[in-house]
Amino acid sequence: MNNIVICGIGLIGGSIAKGLSKNNFNVYVIDSNLDSKNNAIRNKHAHEAMHSVEEVKKLEDAIFIFATPPKTTLEILKKNEWLLSSKFSVTDVTSVKTELIKYLKGFDAENFILSHPISGSHLSGFENSSENLFAGKTTIISSLGSSKFHLDRIQNLWKSLKSNVIELDYENHDKLFSLTSHLPHFVAYSLMKVLHDNNIDISTYAGGGLKEFIRLSQSSPEMWGDIFQSNAHLNKHIDELVEKLIELKELSSSKDGFALKEYLNQFKQ
Amino acid sequence: MNNIVICGIGLIGGSIAKGLSKNNFNVYVIDSNLDSKNNAIRNKHAHEAMHSVEEVKKLEDAIFIFATPPKTTLEILKKNEWLLSSKFSVTDVTSVKTELIKYLKGFDAENFILSHPISGSHLSGFENSSENLFAGKTTIISSLGSSKFHLDRIQNLWKSLKSNVIELDYENHDKLFSLTSHLPHFVAYSLMKVLHDNNIDISTYAGGGLKEFIRLSQSSPEMWGDIFQSNAHLNKHIDELVEKLIELKELSSSKDGFALKEYLNQFKQ
Repeated sequence: MNNIVICGIGLIGGSIAKGLSKNNFNVYVIDSNLDSKNNAIRNKHAHEAMHSVEEVKKLEDAIFIFATPPKTTLEILKKNEWLLSSKFSVTDVTSVKTELIKYLKGFDAENFILSHPISGSHLSGFENSSENLFAGKTTIISSLGSSKFHLDRIQNLWKSLKSNVIELDYENHDKLFSLTSHLPHFVAYSLMKVLHDNNIDISTYAGGGLKEFIRLSQSSPEMWGDIFQSNAHLNKHIDELVEKLIELKELSSSKDGFALKEYLNQFKQ
Repeated sequence: MNNIVICGIGLIGGSIAKGLSKNNFNVYVIDSNLDSKNNAIRNKHAHEAMHSVEEVKKLEDAIFIFATPPKTTLEILKKNEWLLSSKFSVTDVTSVKTELIKYLKGFDAENFILSHPISGSHLSGFENSSENLFAGKTTIISSLGSSKFHLDRIQNLWKSLKSNVIELDYENHDKLFSLTSHLPHFVAYSLMKVLHDNNIDISTYAGGGLKEFIRLSQSSPEMWGDIFQSNAHLNKHIDELVEKLIELKELSSSKDGFALKEYLNQFKQ
């Protein structure tokens, strides 16, 4: 029987626990939040709660999953470097990897596989987790020169959660997500600030266009604060967006309606 | 029986035709697109197709609805100023009013009521129109010193389409929508341009955050080109957004994780 240790049982970690505990895995959970841990044990989403990462040493073998925000993952890992020379397969779940990769490159950590399930939500916390969170969604895994044994194990882990798995070059991971996920969230927060400063009652007048910006701005401040601080590619793309806003503003202010419509038409699928 | 003339049967005009023709109104349609007109007549969404606005003069009384983009509305109106001194009630449906109001102020047009149904879609055209487009949605109407007779008629028109009607001071209309609708669309187009210039395959990697930006950027270039050119408030708010993007970027680049999380937390509802 496979041992799974989940460090951090928020939305993602909780969903992994719920999915795998149904799937005949031995699930161990670590979290500073006692309520979440008790809830997981009581409802049989986990087999045992552990008090510290140290305690994991008692297991012969396991897949160890960091389901913590990027900065926390790095902090815990630095205190538990023994994980990187253990027999365990280790993975994470966050959408920003730059700092983690920089750190891991200092080791010959063939047992660490980077994972990123594209299945986030503006909701957060164990109470919103679901065994089906990953079903039918894509999970990206990246190898840092890892052995086939560990790569296969992590791949099968996500397949057990009914996720489609894509292997992607780790160097392209952060670049891709800075554009497709982090920049949209960054913009949503900035736009909400403009509306807030203009004293707009968004609840009454939010047409279709605004609703999604409101939803994105409800995302976890802890998680997104970490992501905004960690993704080295993001600042460049914010600058590009500012450029494009000014470019489109100038085009709109010119009298050239034809060029403006051509511009807006280029994104039609 | 009430006569309704709909000038322009795209998404909005078509939806009005479909809704009112079921509702015992006499529906006349004007559109340069013959297919849409024939389609409307064939499927009994309209009683008669007219060739020009001139032809409306043959009607004793009617509600005349401009369901055209803002610039087109103004062009047609300028060629048919007789409408403003007729017995007809006249209204429009667009989400930007500045130019129209500037023009109407030159007349004592007590028969013109401004309407704005908040029920848009990224879809456009008669083929996507629906008799239920306005049901349960809000329509804003604004008076320019109009008589109660015309105001009541336009109010009842939208109620017949099952829309909730709110009367709003016309001076606040464009300001409000520049923030809640036009700015989100403007940002969506700009963000898509950044992704496009970075050669991102958005179909494979679009997580939850990006989907709505893609949807907004699929909106009608004719309509949104007109709106971006017409809303005098928009440029100011684009500048504010650029400021906020830079403000948040600086906060993210500082080491102050606490202040960043406080910032992101202020939009939690």
